[in-house]
Amino acid sequence: MTRDHPLTTRGPEPAARFTESGSVADADAAAKESLDWLIARRDAHRFEVTRVPFAELGDWSVQPGTGNLTHRSGKFFTVEGLRVHADAGPVGTWDQPIIVQPEIGLLGFVVKEIDGVLHCLTQAKMEPGNPNLVQVSPTVQATRSNFTRVHRGSATRYLEYFTDPGRARVLVDVLQSEQGSWFLGKRNRNIVVEVPPDEDVPAHPDFRWMTVAELRELLHRDNTVNMDARTVLSCIPFARPTSAPRPGPGQEFRTALRRSMTAAEGALHPLPEVLSWFTERTARHELRTERIPLARVEGWHRDAWEVRHEQGRHFTVFGARVSAASREVSGWTQPLLAPCGTGIAALLVKNLGGVLHALVHARPEAGHVRGVELAPTVQCTPDNYRSLPAASRPRFLDVVLDAPAGRVRFDAIQSEEGGRFHHAECRYTIIEAGDDFPVAVPEDYRWLTLHQLASLLQHSHYLNVQARSLVACLHCLW
Amino acid sequence: MTRDHPLTTRGPEPAARFTESGSVADADAAAKESLDWLIARRDAHRFEVTRVPFAELGDWSVQPGTGNLTHRSGKFFTVEGLRVHADAGPVGTWDQPIIVQPEIGLLGFVVKEIDGVLHCLTQAKMEPGNPNLVQVSPTVQATRSNFTRVHRGSATRYLEYFTDPGRARVLVDVLQSEQGSWFLGKRNRNIVVEVPPDEDVPAHPDFRWMTVAELRELLHRDNTVNMDARTVLSCIPFARPTSAPRPGPGQEFRTALRRSMTAAEGALHPLPEVLSWFTERTARHELRTERIPLARVEGWHRDAWEVRHEQGRHFTVFGARVSAASREVSGWTQPLLAPCGTGIAALLVKNLGGVLHALVHARPEAGHVRGVELAPTVQCTPDNYRSLPAASRPRFLDVVLDAPAGRVRFDAIQSEEGGRFHHAECRYTIIEAGDDFPVAVPEDYRWLTLHQLASLLQHSHYLNVQARSLVACLHCLW
Repeated sequence: MTRDHPLTTRGPEPAARFTESGSVADADAAAKESLDWLIARRDAHRFEVTRVPFAELGDWSVQPGTGNLTHRSGKFFTVEGLRVHADAGPVGTWDQPIIVQPEIGLLGFVVKEIDGVLHCLTQAKMEPGNPNLVQVSPTVQATRSNFTRVHRGSATRYLEYFTDPGRARVLVDVLQSEQGSWFLGKRNRNIVVEVPPDEDVPAHPDFRWMTVAELRELLHRDNTVNMDARTVLSCIPFARPTSAPRPGPGQEFRTALRRSMTAAEGALHPLPEVLSWFTERTARHELRTERIPLARVEGWHRDAWEVRHEQGRHFTVFGARVSAASREVSGWTQPLLAPCGTGIAALLVKNLGGVLHALVHARPEAGHVRGVELAPTVQCTPDNYRSLPAASRPRFLDVVLDAPAGRVRFDAIQSEEGGRFHHAECRYTIIEAGDDFPVAVPEDYRWLTLHQLASLLQHSHYLNVQARSLVACLHCLW
Repeated sequence: MTRDHPLTTRGPEPAARFTESGSVADADAAAKESLDWLIARRDAHRFEVTRVPFAELGDWSVQPGTGNLTHRSGKFFTVEGLRVHADAGPVGTWDQPIIVQPEIGLLGFVVKEIDGVLHCLTQAKMEPGNPNLVQVSPTVQATRSNFTRVHRGSATRYLEYFTDPGRARVLVDVLQSEQGSWFLGKRNRNIVVEVPPDEDVPAHPDFRWMTVAELRELLHRDNTVNMDARTVLSCIPFARPTSAPRPGPGQEFRTALRRSMTAAEGALHPLPEVLSWFTERTARHELRTERIPLARVEGWHRDAWEVRHEQGRHFTVFGARVSAASREVSGWTQPLLAPCGTGIAALLVKNLGGVLHALVHARPEAGHVRGVELAPTVQCTPDNYRSLPAASRPRFLDVVLDAPAGRVRFDAIQSEEGGRFHHAECRYTIIEAGDDFPVAVPEDYRWLTLHQLASLLQHSHYLNVQARSLVACLHCLW
């Protein structure tokens, strides 16, 4: 028997340390300073985003024949067409443009204990589609084409902590999806690595160490913490805080939320039942998709400047010229996808047996690799439903829109990935359902605890990107 | 606070009961009787499988233009072309035919306690591609087209236990992949449901209740337990047996295997590290695939009778006419895929610190929805490597082929899904690595315990179908 191989019975337990970092006092003041830094970084860089016709997109071009938008290198991404056959939902078959980006990018925070408390190395990152251009992003946010330097730019700063074996200890590392209506099969590696307290991580004016508590504060502000930071934060494990919840209004809510952070308090449905339900929903809903040339997409109008839906719904794809000094290269052109109207992503939550439960929706989306992922209770762009009959309005939308202010626990406008989407704003809101809201819900919805959501987030493709953002927001409320 | 919602802190724990069912004494005698039943059922039915040219495939036809093989209903599956661009492996880009079957099928066992012991309702099922036509299958094995009765056959027997809510308690329910070299994105629901001991499940001569111990016996026999039964068995949780392992030769191996069945005994790598490694391997390997018309597949020859590789490697696709009385319909035609040569799927195992570890390979396969899944240590068809240089031979193949008999712990010829594949035989073998076999392995391999494999099997798309078959075989050895 071989005895010289030390075995381990448990993994690293960073959850308590992340909770501690999220519980630091006076985070509000620190967050205000961080906000000043963010604004200063925005002012320090020149940047300009201008619309240009497709013909002036430089390395990007419209392919003869297919009409697809592609980069000269064959890398980055393409804009193509997708034909979707759905067996549920108000529309049976539709065509749409879609962003195809097969390569797996990296979204990563370097974390480090400073004075005994975990800090995340954040970046003030300019992205052309961001409503205010510069937002708080992870330490590294790069496609493989970025960091293998396809566009001949400078090296991605701090990348080595993620790619060099042994440089840092991995705390989180999981592939997750992105917007299933806009991306075909897009996946990113969500990763958090810890460097030793004595590691001398080089400083740079665009980067700043923040506690999780600061990030929790900043998440309450509109368009401040970018999508990539939110999704990585959502995958971080948090232990139930050991301190008592802050007294005052909402204390009962906070108590139930904290009880929701541990398996020990129980759940309405045991996790194996949840997994079985998810399997059943995935097996039931079959969205068949077929890639088609962008030129063959029906119901959309193409001209020299843009591709847009004939009724002005959904989104528009156009060309943009970007110039900015803080980016890996000094200027570039690229297509951007601009949604029409502000989205809404709402999570209804409810205290069941003293434990907060969130109502998630098993939602088929055309671009998701396994067809169905768990979405917020409500996820839609209300404008898209203008001309549809009331019965086709998204379920629970009115419950969300009519919620009294006292039950709105979180409410902020956040924007989606500014590297691909132009001013893709979405209202992220968490609403405590009233006592009259039923526990019995339609078959494609389930009440899950925060601990169950966190367990699922250790694996790929259970929660969609909007649900992950809302998990990050839920973590702002304990 | 709502107090009227009973919460639960744990899921159902069927693992100990499955182990008990697998430990029943005198299973060998029972298995022999079951084998007689299987042979009797084979003899009770007339069946015949004949090759026919594509033109005589009835409801199936070669599409003009694309050359794809499709069913008149648009259901079941199609045979199309796939172009694969790989960034690793001996061949950079290749074309191949591929089976496209987007609908999610159901592979399910009904289980029930008989005299206090769990029994699985097995079926003697005829499949046209099986080497001996009739094998032991799950209770239900059906595509959605089957059970929604696209081919106007009779209803699928026992389906209601899986589809009617409340008829049975779900013990296992997870989507898993199938052969990533032959299927594009194929997924099946692997499910086990338990009916109460007093439920009067109707009997049928083609169905038989067996303990897990009987199935463990039958798995040692060539071409007896079909692939669908093996994959469902692999997803069943087993607790570490409470009894002492059988004394005699191999007792030390059995002891280490039993210690491998629980998290408490530890593992070489903690599970979070394993998940991170899997994420990294997935992110690194990018197989880009492109569906192309079958008529455009290069390097393959098509004629009126078959599609075959120009060097006679890989596989052939041909048309078959089937007649059999025990099937839902009395006769049909369909395409079948016949691999060239017998495959090998081998798991090297090693006692590390008193706990058995299995060496799995993070293997990219073109048809897998997330690109990479964990495969056996060796998975190949040796004949395909005949003309390639020694350096391109699959790693560890020679270790497997040269293993002394005393270290071969499992060895049987099993066949793959006879509903799609014709005589797709594969040698499944589990080999204890010698003391000289290094613990340090290449970056795309990892030593995992059986408990870790079982944890991953609660989720989709971690283990490929060959690895799952070997997990079922490992469970024959404690």
